Amino acid sequence: MRVLGIDPGLTRCGVGVVDVTPDRRATLVFVDVIRTGAGEALEKRLLTIGNQIASMLDEWHPDAVAIERVFAQQNLRTVMGVAQASGVALHASAARGLDVGFHTPTEVKAALTGYGGAEKKQLATMVAKVLRLAEAPKPADASDALALAICHAWKRGASVATDRGTLTPAQQAWHAAERSAARSGAHRRLAP
Amino acid sequence: MRVLGIDPGLTRCGVGVVDVTPDRRATLVFVDVIRTGAGEALEKRLLTIGNQIASMLDEWHPDAVAIERVFAQQNLRTVMGVAQASGVALHASAARGLDVGFHTPTEVKAALTGYGGAEKKQLATMVAKVLRLAEAPKPADASDALALAICHAWKRGASVATDRGTLTPAQQAWHAAERSAARSGAHRRLAP
Repeated sequence: MRVLGIDPGLTRCGVGVVDVTPDRRATLVFVDVIRTGAGEALEKRLLTIGNQIASMLDEWHPDAVAIERVFAQQNLRTVMGVAQASGVALHASAARGLDVGFHTPTEVKAALTGYGGAEKKQLATMVAKVLRLAEAPKPADASDALALAICHAWKRGASVATDRGTLTPAQQAWHAAERSAARSGAHRRLAP
Repeated sequence: MRVLGIDPGLTRCGVGVVDVTPDRRATLVFVDVIRTGAGEALEKRLLTIGNQIASMLDEWHPDAVAIERVFAQQNLRTVMGVAQASGVALHASAARGLDVGFHTPTEVKAALTGYGGAEKKQLATMVAKVLRLAEAPKPADASDALALAICHAWKRGASVATDRGTLTPAQQAWHAAERSAARSGAHRRLAP
């Protein structure tokens, strides 16, 4: 399953594509941050964001789009721009008939780290581990977009394959990351 | 000058097109309300709104788009949907290279009635008078969209033609409406 994750924003809009197999193994396909200048006209900033997201949808052909669910209660200074950017992203996704999932930051943190109150840095560390990267993509908007995509794929997969007694997605991610570290990074660190 | 006014919203999005001559005479071209159901998926509602606005832009070829400036401080329950709908409207406008103007409700009321704290009903009455209609288009979203379009045209025109000693746009509107009423409605009322 291929998912495009979007962390919407006017100044920085994180976008990340991951492929996730039924056994929850996730692979990085593409990650970027769409940037627009605060001095530009609002409608031109939204045009840039919408057009770039449309290009990515047409280039990477995701099966689904995962986007942060925004609340008016969040940072009032930026929330209107976030909502407007999410509007154009949702329009581009719906125009292509794509499945769209909305996830709160708490849901994303819980899915990846097992704890909804995890710190930003813990989430970024888990994104890197799950995707078997040496470090988390920067800035945080890029890493957050990938976290949204992984969260969405795991939740959708979990709704099909959940079974009593199996590990939670977060637990499986930790175990997979530990196995991965044992196989690669740890070996490299121990090599002469 | 032809202006498309947009009063953004998810459930009801008012859209109105007016032609305004340099002497500030405004004529109704088109008015409608785009409606989407609260039970529909958010991305599908935004697709409907964006596509219908795009169709109107391509059918009516306005010179400019006027849209309500939204603030996070407004009604928290609906402000996110308003911002998302405005995002897709702005994207469609920018994609066609159109001039976009943002006006607050206070600015619109001040431009049309001469008083920024005017009641909704006063504003609707002025919209009808300025456009020489028997009554204001309903619902209020339709009337508000037309008010935005008129406000925008008058403000743009005023920036070119302002002269010391001339009437303000609102004063001119009142006088024009009074003359219009004297010519038509009043005569009709007095006719046997």
